[in-house]
Amino acid sequence: MTEPHAPGEVPDVAHLDLDRGARRGYPEAVLCGPKTPEQVGAIAAEIGRTGTRALFTRATPAHAAAVLAALPDALHVPEAQLLAWPPEPPEPTGGLVVVVSAGTSDLPVAREAELTAQHLGRRTELVVDVGVAGLHRVLARLDLLRSARVVVVAAGMDGALPSVVAGLVAAPVVAVPTSVGYGAAFSGLAPLLSMLNACAPGVAVVNIDNGYGAGHLAAQIAAS
Amino acid sequence: MTEPHAPGEVPDVAHLDLDRGARRGYPEAVLCGPKTPEQVGAIAAEIGRTGTRALFTRATPAHAAAVLAALPDALHVPEAQLLAWPPEPPEPTGGLVVVVSAGTSDLPVAREAELTAQHLGRRTELVVDVGVAGLHRVLARLDLLRSARVVVVAAGMDGALPSVVAGLVAAPVVAVPTSVGYGAAFSGLAPLLSMLNACAPGVAVVNIDNGYGAGHLAAQIAAS
Amino acid sequence: MTEPHAPGEVPDVAHLDLDRGARRGYPEAVLCGPKTPEQVGAIAAEIGRTGTRALFTRATPAHAAAVLAALPDALHVPEAQLLAWPPEPPEPTGGLVVVVSAGTSDLPVAREAELTAQHLGRRTELVVDVGVAGLHRVLARLDLLRSARVVVVAAGMDGALPSVVAGLVAAPVVAVPTSVGYGAAFSGLAPLLSMLNACAPGVAVVNIDNGYGAGHLAAQIAAS
Amino acid sequence: MTEPHAPGEVPDVAHLDLDRGARRGYPEAVLCGPKTPEQVGAIAAEIGRTGTRALFTRATPAHAAAVLAALPDALHVPEAQLLAWPPEPPEPTGGLVVVVSAGTSDLPVAREAELTAQHLGRRTELVVDVGVAGLHRVLARLDLLRSARVVVVAAGMDGALPSVVAGLVAAPVVAVPTSVGYGAAFSGLAPLLSMLNACAPGVAVVNIDNGYGAGHLAAQIAAS
Amino acid sequence: MTEPHAPGEVPDVAHLDLDRGARRGYPEAVLCGPKTPEQVGAIAAEIGRTGTRALFTRATPAHAAAVLAALPDALHVPEAQLLAWPPEPPEPTGGLVVVVSAGTSDLPVAREAELTAQHLGRRTELVVDVGVAGLHRVLARLDLLRSARVVVVAAGMDGALPSVVAGLVAAPVVAVPTSVGYGAAFSGLAPLLSMLNACAPGVAVVNIDNGYGAGHLAAQIAAS
Amino acid sequence: MTEPHAPGEVPDVAHLDLDRGARRGYPEAVLCGPKTPEQVGAIAAEIGRTGTRALFTRATPAHAAAVLAALPDALHVPEAQLLAWPPEPPEPTGGLVVVVSAGTSDLPVAREAELTAQHLGRRTELVVDVGVAGLHRVLARLDLLRSARVVVVAAGMDGALPSVVAGLVAAPVVAVPTSVGYGAAFSGLAPLLSMLNACAPGVAVVNIDNGYGAGHLAAQIAAS
Amino acid sequence: MTEPHAPGEVPDVAHLDLDRGARRGYPEAVLCGPKTPEQVGAIAAEIGRTGTRALFTRATPAHAAAVLAALPDALHVPEAQLLAWPPEPPEPTGGLVVVVSAGTSDLPVAREAELTAQHLGRRTELVVDVGVAGLHRVLARLDLLRSARVVVVAAGMDGALPSVVAGLVAAPVVAVPTSVGYGAAFSGLAPLLSMLNACAPGVAVVNIDNGYGAGHLAAQIAAS
Amino acid sequence: MTEPHAPGEVPDVAHLDLDRGARRGYPEAVLCGPKTPEQVGAIAAEIGRTGTRALFTRATPAHAAAVLAALPDALHVPEAQLLAWPPEPPEPTGGLVVVVSAGTSDLPVAREAELTAQHLGRRTELVVDVGVAGLHRVLARLDLLRSARVVVVAAGMDGALPSVVAGLVAAPVVAVPTSVGYGAAFSGLAPLLSMLNACAPGVAVVNIDNGYGAGHLAAQIAAS
Repeated sequence: MTEPHAPGEVPDVAHLDLDRGARRGYPEAVLCGPKTPEQVGAIAAEIGRTGTRALFTRATPAHAAAVLAALPDALHVPEAQLLAWPPEPPEPTGGLVVVVSAGTSDLPVAREAELTAQHLGRRTELVVDVGVAGLHRVLARLDLLRSARVVVVAAGMDGALPSVVAGLVAAPVVAVPTSVGYGAAFSGLAPLLSMLNACAPGVAVVNIDNGYGAGHLAAQIAAS
Repeated sequence: MTEPHAPGEVPDVAHLDLDRGARRGYPEAVLCGPKTPEQVGAIAAEIGRTGTRALFTRATPAHAAAVLAALPDALHVPEAQLLAWPPEPPEPTGGLVVVVSAGTSDLPVAREAELTAQHLGRRTELVVDVGVAGLHRVLARLDLLRSARVVVVAAGMDGALPSVVAGLVAAPVVAVPTSVGYGAAFSGLAPLLSMLNACAPGVAVVNIDNGYGAGHLAAQIAAS
Repeated sequence: MTEPHAPGEVPDVAHLDLDRGARRGYPEAVLCGPKTPEQVGAIAAEIGRTGTRALFTRATPAHAAAVLAALPDALHVPEAQLLAWPPEPPEPTGGLVVVVSAGTSDLPVAREAELTAQHLGRRTELVVDVGVAGLHRVLARLDLLRSARVVVVAAGMDGALPSVVAGLVAAPVVAVPTSVGYGAAFSGLAPLLSMLNACAPGVAVVNIDNGYGAGHLAAQIAAS
Repeated sequence: MTEPHAPGEVPDVAHLDLDRGARRGYPEAVLCGPKTPEQVGAIAAEIGRTGTRALFTRATPAHAAAVLAALPDALHVPEAQLLAWPPEPPEPTGGLVVVVSAGTSDLPVAREAELTAQHLGRRTELVVDVGVAGLHRVLARLDLLRSARVVVVAAGMDGALPSVVAGLVAAPVVAVPTSVGYGAAFSGLAPLLSMLNACAPGVAVVNIDNGYGAGHLAAQIAAS
Repeated sequence: MTEPHAPGEVPDVAHLDLDRGARRGYPEAVLCGPKTPEQVGAIAAEIGRTGTRALFTRATPAHAAAVLAALPDALHVPEAQLLAWPPEPPEPTGGLVVVVSAGTSDLPVAREAELTAQHLGRRTELVVDVGVAGLHRVLARLDLLRSARVVVVAAGMDGALPSVVAGLVAAPVVAVPTSVGYGAAFSGLAPLLSMLNACAPGVAVVNIDNGYGAGHLAAQIAAS
Repeated sequence: MTEPHAPGEVPDVAHLDLDRGARRGYPEAVLCGPKTPEQVGAIAAEIGRTGTRALFTRATPAHAAAVLAALPDALHVPEAQLLAWPPEPPEPTGGLVVVVSAGTSDLPVAREAELTAQHLGRRTELVVDVGVAGLHRVLARLDLLRSARVVVVAAGMDGALPSVVAGLVAAPVVAVPTSVGYGAAFSGLAPLLSMLNACAPGVAVVNIDNGYGAGHLAAQIAAS
Repeated sequence: MTEPHAPGEVPDVAHLDLDRGARRGYPEAVLCGPKTPEQVGAIAAEIGRTGTRALFTRATPAHAAAVLAALPDALHVPEAQLLAWPPEPPEPTGGLVVVVSAGTSDLPVAREAELTAQHLGRRTELVVDVGVAGLHRVLARLDLLRSARVVVVAAGMDGALPSVVAGLVAAPVVAVPTSVGYGAAFSGLAPLLSMLNACAPGVAVVNIDNGYGAGHLAAQIAAS
Repeated sequence: MTEPHAPGEVPDVAHLDLDRGARRGYPEAVLCGPKTPEQVGAIAAEIGRTGTRALFTRATPAHAAAVLAALPDALHVPEAQLLAWPPEPPEPTGGLVVVVSAGTSDLPVAREAELTAQHLGRRTELVVDVGVAGLHRVLARLDLLRSARVVVVAAGMDGALPSVVAGLVAAPVVAVPTSVGYGAAFSGLAPLLSMLNACAPGVAVVNIDNGYGAGHLAAQIAAS
C-alpha cells in the first residue's frame, strides 16, 4: 500500500468510483461481507485519503475494527452491521422515508435501510413490530404512513405486510424480504415471492435482507 | 360392466370404498380430472346402484355428461366443476363454515370448498372479493368471520389474506392457495409458501386449487 | 344484473373500490386474464354506470369485446392487451417516465407499462431494442435516460439491462422481467433473479411480465 | 428498561399484544430463535410485570437462561426448546389432542406440539415411533387415534404417515413436516410436499419443524 | 430409405443396437414421444427387416399407425401407449412381478410397466386402486404381494404407497412416481421426492411416469 | 432404563422392531445422525439385551462411542460412519454385489453400501475411482462388472457413471448420488436427476448419500 | 414501412446492428420465436434492403413464410427451424466443428448448431445417435472426434455424453442440453445440471435447446 | 504406502491417470476439497514419484501442508486455494487469455482461472473490479479485451458482465458464476442462470465458483 497510486486505486483490490458522487449523486458503498478485513481496511484508508463519503455494509466486528483503524471517527451501528463516514449524515432534503419493521427479528434489516436513507440525505422515521397478525398496530400508525413520500417495509415469514401497507397509502412501498422464519420460508424465498405478487400495486421489491438496497432506493424515490 | 360383481367393484377401474361412510363418516369423492369420462361414468353407475352418497370433483363438461347420464338428478355446479349426488346436502349439523374468496378469480375454488362443506353436512356462508389490498372490506365482515367455527380462505397472488384473517378471529383458518397470478406466482407456489409461513398461528394449509380438500377439512373441524 | 344494487357492487362477482381514487389517487384496474368475459363485461358496465376511471389489463380479444360492448369509446391497445376508459389519459403532472424495452419481444410488456403510467397521469417516452449485447445503443440514449424521474426497463433472457442503466442514471429504475427466452430462462425466473441481484443500487423489481405493475409504480415514484 | 412505559411496550424491541388473550383467547408466544437473549430477557420481564400467560419457543440455552432470570418459576423443556409461564397449563377443556411422532428424530417437534396444546388448554396424548415402515405399530394404537378430536402427526423423510392416519380416523389430522432425512428430503421439502398431496382428505399442513404452530392449530380445532 | 444400408442402420435417424440382445439380453425399445411418426415408421420397418424383438413406448395414435403400417401384427395397447413386436411375449422365466396401481389414474403407467415386464420374459400380476388412504385394500392383497420376487408400485399425489408396501414385504420395490395430482404435486415432483425418502429400505426409484423403465428394472431384478 | 420393559422397547425413545428379521429377513438399522448419543446408546443396550442383529449408520465419533460402550465387540468402520453388531457378517448367500466408486470422494458412501450388503449376507467386491472422464478405467473392469448379480454405483458431480455401466451389463444397477461437487451440483441434486434420467434402462435410484439404502436394496436384489 | 428510415432501422420493431459484422465478425441473427410473423417479415425486408448476412432461428412455418416472402432465395431447413440468407455459407476457414447428437430426438438442436457453424464459416461433420448407453458407438467415431477443433454435443435425459466425449478428446466440448426426456428431466434441467458438473474439464455449457448458441460458440472457438 | 505398486496407483484411494498428458495434453488435477489431507498427501507423493505435472485445487491450509510435505517446491497461492507442481508453468504457447473479475469478491475464482490457464501453457492478463454498474471501467479496457483469444469473466450477483463483454469482442467468453451475493443470488444460481441466458452469443458457462474449469476451458480454446 506504500507505493504511489492514482486516487481511488487500491492496488490488486478495488477501483473506488470517486466520481460516482458526481455521476449518481450518492456516497460510495463497500459491501464488506465477502471481503477480507485487510481488503476492507485498505479501502477505508483510501476513502479517508480521498475524502470520499462512504458506507460500509455487512460489516462483521473484524471488518468494523479494520474500518475504525483507518477512520477512527466513523459511525458504527453494530445492530445494522453498518459504518458511515463521515459520521454525520448530510443535511436532509426531499421527502420523508418511513421504515417499518414487521417483527423484532426484522429490525437489523430495517435499521440498515433507515441509516442508509439518512446518509443519502433523507429524513426518516422507524416503526417497529407491526405485523399483519395484529392489524390494529398498523392502523394505529396510519397517519405517519400516509405522511411518507415512500415507505420501506422489512418483513420475513409470509411477507404480507407490504401488500397491506400498499393498500393503505398512495406512496410507493419498497419491500425488503428478510430471511427470518421456519423451514418453508426457505431463507427468504417465501416473503420474496409474496412481495413480488403483492395484490396492491406500487410495491418495489429488492433482494433478501438487503436493507442497504432498500434504503438507497427509498432515498432516490424521496429525492423530490 | 354387465358381468356380476361385488358391490363397490368397478372391474379394472376402481374399488369404491363403500364402508368409508361408516369408517370416516363422509361421502365418497371421485376426482374426475385424470380419469376418462368412460371411467367416471362407470363409477357413477356403481354409485347409483349402491346408493352411495358421492361428490364428483374437477369435472369437465364431458365428465359431467357421463355422470348425469348415470345419475340424472345429480346437482351440477359448472363454476365449481363439481357434481353431488343425491343433489340435496344432508341436514346441517355442527358449526358454521365461512368461506372467503380473496378475489373474483378465486371464486371457483371457494365455491368448490363451500359446496363440499355443505354436502358433508355443514352450514356455510360465502364472502367474495375481500383482498388485503382493501382492508376495509375484510373489516366490514368481521362479525360474520367471528361467528364461524372455521374460516376457509381461498387466495392466489401473495396469499396474504389467511394471515390477516387468522389475526382477527379465534377460530382456525383453512387456507387454500390458488394458481391465480402473474409469472412469479409460479402456479400457486407463492401463495402456498406465504400461507405456510403465516405469521398468525392457526392457519391450516391444503394443496393448490384444492377447494374440495379445504371444504372437507373445514367440515371435519366444524363437526362439533 | 337487473336488480338494484349499491354503487360499485357487481353481485356475486366483485366489489369495485370506488373510493380508491380518493384513498390512493389512481384509477381502478381490472385484471381480465383469470376472469370470464361475462364477469369482465359486468364489471365494465358498473364502471360506466358509476363513471369510474379504469384500466383493463391482460385482456384477450374476448375480454376486449366484452369491455367495448359496455364502454364503446374505451381505448383498446391490443399489442399491450390493455383497455382504458375514458380513452384520454388525465393531464400529465409530475416527472418524466422513460420506458425501455431491451428487445423487440419485450415490447408488449413495455407498452403496457407506458400506457399505465400515462393513464395515471405521467408524461412518458418509449425506447425500443437497446439490449446490453449492443451497449452503444444504450449509450446513444443517455441524455433521454438522464432526464427521467424514473426509468422502467423491460427485459427477458439475462435481465442485465436494468443493472447497466442503474449504473448510468441517478433516478430509480423499475425493472420488469419478461418471460422471453430459451429453456433456462425458466419463464422469466432468470431475469427476475438477475434484477433482484443488480450490482447497481436503485433497482425496484416487480413481477414477471407485469407491465401494469411497473407502470403504476413508476407513476407513483414520478408523482413529484 | 428503567424508563416508564406503557404496559406491553418493550421500547425499541416489541409491542406485546396484551389483549390478544381477549381477542383470540390464547397466550402470547415469543419466537426466540432470531432474537438476541437480551431482547428475549426484556420481553420476559415485561411478561412477568404484566402477568401475561406466555410461551417461549425455539429457545437456545442462552435464551432459556434469559427467560429464567426474569421468570424463575417458568417451565423449561429443553428437548422441545420451549418455556412456559406460568409453568402450569390451564385446566383442560375441549377434546383430546393425540400427537404422533413418526420416528425418534421427530420427537422434539412432536413434544413442542404437545406442550403447546396443553398450555392452550387441551388434554394430550403422545405416541412415539410409529412410522409407516411398520404399519402394525400404527394399527396397534387405532383405538387411541380414533378417540381424538384431532391428531397431530410429526414426520420427516417421506412424510407418509399423515396420509395413512387420515385414512383411519374421522378427525382432522394436523401434519407437521420435520427436517429429518437424507439429502433428497431437502430439509423438509419432501415431507412437506407429501403432506400437501395426502391422498386422504382431512390433512391440515403447517410449516416445517413448526411444532408450536401444529399444537396451536390442534388446540383451536379441539376447542369444542 | 431405398438405398442399401447396414443392418440396424436407419440413415440420418438411428442406429439400431442389434446386438443389444446379446449384450444385455433384452429387446430393443423405441421411445416414440419425441420422434416424428415418419422416423418411428422407418425404425419399425428396419426392425421388421432384421427380425429384432422390440417395444415402442409413448406411442400416440399417429405413432401407432406408423408402426402398424410396417409391422401389421404388432400388439397395440392404447391405454399404455405401447406396441410390442412380435405380439406374443417370450415364454416366462424367473420370478413373479406384481404391479400395483395406487389409483385409477395411475393405471396407464402401471400397465406400461406390466406389459414391459411380460415382454422381457416375466410372469406378472396387476393390482388396481389400493392407495394408502384405504390400508385395508393393501392388507387384503398381502399374500400376493409377499409371493412376488419384486413389486412395482405406480403412485402419484403423496407417493406414500411404496413405503408402506416395502414395510410389508421382503422383496425389493420398484417405485414409479406419476404426474397425477393437484398443483403442489408439481407434475410428479412430490411423489418422486417421497419415494426417494421412503422410510422403509428396499425402494428403487425410477423417473416420473416411466412405466417402461419400471417394468424393465423389475424384469432384470426378477431374472432369477 | 432400569425399569422393566417389554423386549424391543426403549421407553420414550424407540420401539425396536424385533420381528422385522422374521418379517423382512434383514437386521435392524439405527440411523444415528439425528439422534442424541444417549438415545443411540440406549438403543444399543436394548439390541445387546435382545440379541438382535443390527447396523448403526451415520454414526459420528460420539455416536460410535455410545454404541461401543454398550456393545464393545461391535465392528466400527469410521470411514463409512457405520457400526455392525455382531461384528461378523452372516455366511454369504445369493449373487455377487459389485460396488463402484466413481471418485475418491465417493468412497465413504460406497463403503457404507458395501458393508451393508455384506451384513445382509452378500458377497461384495469394491471398485475405486473409475469415473466416466477416463472410460478405459471402466472398461478395464468389465469382466468383474458382468459377473455381478447387481452393481451399485456411487457418483457425485454429473452422475453419469450409472448410465454408462447400465449400458455395459445385463444386471440391474443401483445408483446412489453423492453430495460431492461444485456449486451447481446443488448438494447432490445434479447427479440425482442425472441418474433418474439415465438413458440406459435398468437403473434403480436411491436417496443422496444413502449408501445404506443402496447396499440394502442391492442385497435384496441379489438374494437369489 | 414505406416512410424513409435509416439503414438497419425497422421503426417501432428493431434496430438491426449492421456494423456487428465489423465489430464481431459474424452475421446478424433474428430469434423469430417470440416475434410476430409481421415483425419478422419487416426485419427480413430490411435485411434484404441492406444486404446483411443473417440467420433466422426458431422459425415456425408462419415465420418462414414471412421471411421467404421478403427473401425468396433464403435457405430454409424446417427440421432445424432455421433460415439463412444468403443461402450459401461463406467459404470455410478455421478448424473442423464436429456436432454430435446423442439421440434421434436431439437432432433438431444438433442440426441448428451445425448449420449455424457453417454459416459462420466453419467446416462441420454431424454424428447421429451415439448415446452413452451404447459406448461402442462413441468409440467407433473416436478418430473423427479427435480431428475436431471443437466438438458440439447435443443431449437430453442424463446429459452424460459431453462428459464422456470430453474425457476422450483434447479439444473443448460445447454441450447443449435438450428438453427431451421423462418428467424428472424437468424440460432440460437434468442434462443442464449434468453438463455443468461434467467430471472431465473442458465442457462449455449453453442454454437448453439453444443449437444456435452452441453453433455460434463453436464457430468462434474454431476460428483458428 | 510402503508396499510396491504400479505407477499412478495410490492403493484404496486413487488411480492417477498418468497418460492423460499424452491423451489430452494437460496436467493431472487433484480436487482437494472433498478429500482428507492424508489422501491428498498420498496422491502428492505419487505425483512426485512419477514426475507428473499437476495442479491441486480447492486446497485448505491442511491440504496445502500435506502437499508441501510431499512436494516442498510446489507453488502455493492461498488466495486461489491452489498449488502447482512443478512451480514453474510451461513455456506459453497459443493465444492470450484475459481474465476479468467483476468485483473484489470474485478475485479468488478469477485468480484460480488465471493460474490454471498459465499452468496449461497460456499467457494471461488479469483485470480487476470492472462490474457493469460502472461501464466506463469496462470500456477503458476494451483494447486489452479485444486482443484476447478468449476472455474469462468471473462474476456473482447479477452475472451481467459476460453478456456485456461478449457484445464487445469477437472472441468467445468463458463465464464462471461465483457464489457472491445477497440471499436471492441463491449461492450462485442467479448469475449462473443469467450467464446461460446471455443475450450476446458466444458465452460458454461453467460451474459455480469453478475457476479451475474456466481456466482449463480457456486454455483449450486458446491453444491455437
